[in-house]
Amino acid sequence: MKIGLLIIGNEILDGKINDANTKQLSIFLNSLNLELFTTLTVRDEQQLIHLGLDSLFSQCDVVVTSGGLGPTKDDVTKESIASFLGRKVFFSNSSFEVAQKNYLRFNRPFPGQDHGYCFLPEGFTALENSTGFAPGLFTENSGKFLLCGPGVPKEFKSLLEDHFVNFIKNKFPPSSELIESITVRTKKVPEEKIFGEVDNTLWDKLAQFGSVSSLPTTMGVDIGVKIKASEKNELEEKKKKVLTIFSSSPIAQHIWQIGTLSIEEYIVKMANLKNKTYGFAESCTGGLCSHRITNISGCSQTFYGSVICYDESVKEGILGVNKSTLKNFGAVSLKTAEEMSLGLSKALNVDIAIAITGLAGPGGGSEEKPVGTFCLGITSMGKTSSQILQMHGDREQLKLRFSQGALFLLLEELERYS
Amino acid sequence: MKIGLLIIGNEILDGKINDANTKQLSIFLNSLNLELFTTLTVRDEQQLIHLGLDSLFSQCDVVVTSGGLGPTKDDVTKESIASFLGRKVFFSNSSFEVAQKNYLRFNRPFPGQDHGYCFLPEGFTALENSTGFAPGLFTENSGKFLLCGPGVPKEFKSLLEDHFVNFIKNKFPPSSELIESITVRTKKVPEEKIFGEVDNTLWDKLAQFGSVSSLPTTMGVDIGVKIKASEKNELEEKKKKVLTIFSSSPIAQHIWQIGTLSIEEYIVKMANLKNKTYGFAESCTGGLCSHRITNISGCSQTFYGSVICYDESVKEGILGVNKSTLKNFGAVSLKTAEEMSLGLSKALNVDIAIAITGLAGPGGGSEEKPVGTFCLGITSMGKTSSQILQMHGDREQLKLRFSQGALFLLLEELERYS
Repeated sequence: MKIGLLIIGNEILDGKINDANTKQLSIFLNSLNLELFTTLTVRDEQQLIHLGLDSLFSQCDVVVTSGGLGPTKDDVTKESIASFLGRKVFFSNSSFEVAQKNYLRFNRPFPGQDHGYCFLPEGFTALENSTGFAPGLFTENSGKFLLCGPGVPKEFKSLLEDHFVNFIKNKFPPSSELIESITVRTKKVPEEKIFGEVDNTLWDKLAQFGSVSSLPTTMGVDIGVKIKASEKNELEEKKKKVLTIFSSSPIAQHIWQIGTLSIEEYIVKMANLKNKTYGFAESCTGGLCSHRITNISGCSQTFYGSVICYDESVKEGILGVNKSTLKNFGAVSLKTAEEMSLGLSKALNVDIAIAITGLAGPGGGSEEKPVGTFCLGITSMGKTSSQILQMHGDREQLKLRFSQGALFLLLEELERYS
Repeated sequence: MKIGLLIIGNEILDGKINDANTKQLSIFLNSLNLELFTTLTVRDEQQLIHLGLDSLFSQCDVVVTSGGLGPTKDDVTKESIASFLGRKVFFSNSSFEVAQKNYLRFNRPFPGQDHGYCFLPEGFTALENSTGFAPGLFTENSGKFLLCGPGVPKEFKSLLEDHFVNFIKNKFPPSSELIESITVRTKKVPEEKIFGEVDNTLWDKLAQFGSVSSLPTTMGVDIGVKIKASEKNELEEKKKKVLTIFSSSPIAQHIWQIGTLSIEEYIVKMANLKNKTYGFAESCTGGLCSHRITNISGCSQTFYGSVICYDESVKEGILGVNKSTLKNFGAVSLKTAEEMSLGLSKALNVDIAIAITGLAGPGGGSEEKPVGTFCLGITSMGKTSSQILQMHGDREQLKLRFSQGALFLLLEELERYS
């Protein structure tokens, strides 16, 4: 079964926001052992929506649309779909009821029966929206299926979870083919080296058992192997062989996880398991390390807090960094990083204190310490140490890479604890 | 001139990452008075890339591709494009030189003349990549144009800026039509109310002068008006009329900016201009307020730092919140928020101290204080006050909305200073 996504929205093609619904639909489909075939983005214009629907219906069995269902005049999806299918739009009691329910959920009065949400093309079903106001839409068209969701990612997601899942299970019982994706996350080695000087036979070895992919990100390179099998034993056998290839390859030393947890999820899990408390003294990362950790529910069990010490007065005042250290060695120095982590470990009374100080740019660099230089300090098990590193990128990338360095250091330290 | 983007990458359709290149290309084109017509995403397979190219070339004058130019075996863009156009791939001295330069820039030795980067389809030009290794590609095809860039957003962007800009200016001299987009950012009012009970004639009034759009985000609703005119006076006249419509509408009280700066950019600019220092005591937002502010270059002039006080011991220890306050009123209370901001203003010695404490969930809510409840405290001009608010959403959305609340409070306070 081929599934295509039509994204309808000038806001995407005018660069106001990134599309987030392709990712959501893909993840959702993968969880049902299905794949997204293609995504097409068009502007909020009837003629272009027609072209998009035409193109996707010619290739796919199921077309999902996102966007253009709202109450404002640039929302033309419903009318465009109706005219594409040659169906009339009329007042629908069921749609009225669904829209009313959507409003009730937020304790908001429904505007009335002349509201656009009460009108539906012939043969369409209105779908409740558990996170917003605009109803979703569903219809069949010559044996193919059309599901329309709002563009707001949260609402699009709830439409998939509330309605699409049942539709898929009813109309398309799961295929007997088993699919499993193995993801291996590496650190501190570029993509080209992995499949070159580190292990130039790795790709071909893995490809015997599934389709291989490589995804370089700011955080490291993910190697994926998608395995297909007709029954469980075969799948397990293939999985085992793939894992053996990884563990016996020189790449093994760069692998920090077999799985798809983010580093912050991985840290929170491990810190909670080992019951080790931690915190950050963040200068150049400006709160990003703490923000990433606190995105993970359950972090409060061991994450105590942080000090964002952007100004030197905060480094001195709260963390007790010596004025002379800052003067003689500079804010970006091993000595300052060490005094920051030591000061933090006292101020917060945590098992592991991590300090980050560096130059995120664009200004502030020198020949000796160019933008991208950063120092990590760590105080743990009664000892304090530090290291100096260098990264490339713009301000946003550098903050992310600095924070990644700090999180990897924390992870390595957590691994040392029993 | 119609410009289409073909995104090539399983990583997008498998939900591993969001596409960021549509946004980059759109913003880039808008800066040249051009628009992106459509975006199509296909998998890394020769046949699907052919279908995608076919579809885009049938509609567009210029096709830009992103992705699949890297060194691994799932990168098949170059070969697929060559076979689509019926061109052979051969060793190219110019491509070899370009690739060598890309490596030199990062102080990395070039792998050698048999490397894939040295091979080019007939009639193609290899383009230097100032931020990565893979060369970009350019060619003409029956009077239409094809530009291929790497999928990594940073590299795609530099290709646009380094090469595409000249190409566009040479091949397509700017049209005489003038285009200007006015964006008005509102806060604390839902989209439906803006064009309903607040001002139900607003849309039609604006639409007399340009194409109107409305974009609801977690941060508020942006209203856009895209004005076109044949000469400067006409454009200025229309702009003036649009701004008058906004200023004389009841929506005016909800407008916090005419422009497209983010709230954090706006704050950094205003705080630096007024020379007022500030910081945050962040509990539930976990560093997000500070992270957002420190994304803005130049913030160090007035942003001193923050205390992320996730654990109660940090609220007591660094901020001096009373144990009895936490015990009697709870961590999420007006009293705690006030003691946090007061404590922070002392610890950091800043003009404006903002405190945020709340329940981001999913656990921890009660009937009296459900998930989504948060308190803001502020100490400024010798006074401390607080407020309690309620938001909807999941953990990630709540952190974002809480931080937005804190930033709006900071902005309003900065506006009070001369």
